[in-house]
Amino acid sequence: MRWEVRVAYRRGVQDPEGETARDALEMLGYGCVAEVRTAKLFIIEGECTREEVEEMCRRLLANPVSQEYEIRRVD
Amino acid sequence: MRWEVRVAYRRGVQDPEGETARDALEMLGYGCVAEVRTAKLFIIEGECTREEVEEMCRRLLANPVSQEYEIRRVD
Repeated sequence: MRWEVRVAYRRGVQDPEGETARDALEMLGYGCVAEVRTAKLFIIEGECTREEVEEMCRRLLANPVSQEYEIRRVD
Repeated sequence: MRWEVRVAYRRGVQDPEGETARDALEMLGYGCVAEVRTAKLFIIEGECTREEVEEMCRRLLANPVSQEYEIRRVD
């Protein structure tokens, strides 16, 4: 089984890496870019249930204060 | 327009963050996890063309030696 966990900053929380990317793209001449946000993907292989993956997110992979997550089975 | 760029380590390249996550999940008791790999998402908002986003990947967002990227329009 393969699960994809997408961890992103909640709306309203600063995303420094996204801001740095946007500024760098602007300096490189990409005036078309209005905003860049980032997210992290964890691709988890193994015989895990959705409930186990949910628990992994709550316990380790995401910070509930500033981040939200989405779980998707991809195989 | 919204583009999603997914940057991942090439197969065969070590993914230290994925390995750390796997080890930590194992220590937390998730024996079901065989492997964890990670990827980075850049969500780019703006009136950019696919060609511009391709160029951004080559010039800034991905390291061609160790990473590969995938571009998807999501709006």
